[in-house]
Amino acid sequence: MKASVTVTLKPGILDTQGQAVRHALLSMNGRQITDVRVGKLIEIELDEDDEVAAMKIVTKMCDKLLANPVTEDYDIKLLK
Amino acid sequence: MKASVTVTLKPGILDTQGQAVRHALLSMNGRQITDVRVGKLIEIELDEDDEVAAMKIVTKMCDKLLANPVTEDYDIKLLK
Repeated sequence: MKASVTVTLKPGILDTQGQAVRHALLSMNGRQITDVRVGKLIEIELDEDDEVAAMKIVTKMCDKLLANPVTEDYDIKLLK
Repeated sequence: MKASVTVTLKPGILDTQGQAVRHALLSMNGRQITDVRVGKLIEIELDEDDEVAAMKIVTKMCDKLLANPVTEDYDIKLLK
């Protein structure tokens, strides 16, 4: 089974990387851009066929390693 | 309009960050993990209501700044 995890900064947390990208886009004529936020996408291949078990494993990994629970939110999607 | 862009390494390109995450997960008992790949998620707020125009702007930005066309693939999703 494959899991796709997105990790994003919580709303209200200053996203310096996003601000840098926004400035770069503005300087190349992207005047329509009002906000940019940058997050991580982590694709995990799991040797586990049960959806509930896979979700449990990936949730534990997010809590312990992949996301910082103080500043980041995560979202897990399981794909066959 | 909001655009969600995912940038991932092309298949076959060595993902050192993904390998590092995989090793860290294996060391915390994630024996089921067979592969990890790490990419970027970029959320862009655009002051543009037309879907075709928005897609054109974001595609240009991906080609010129957000992704490296030699090593990376990108995927754009427009959200209202």
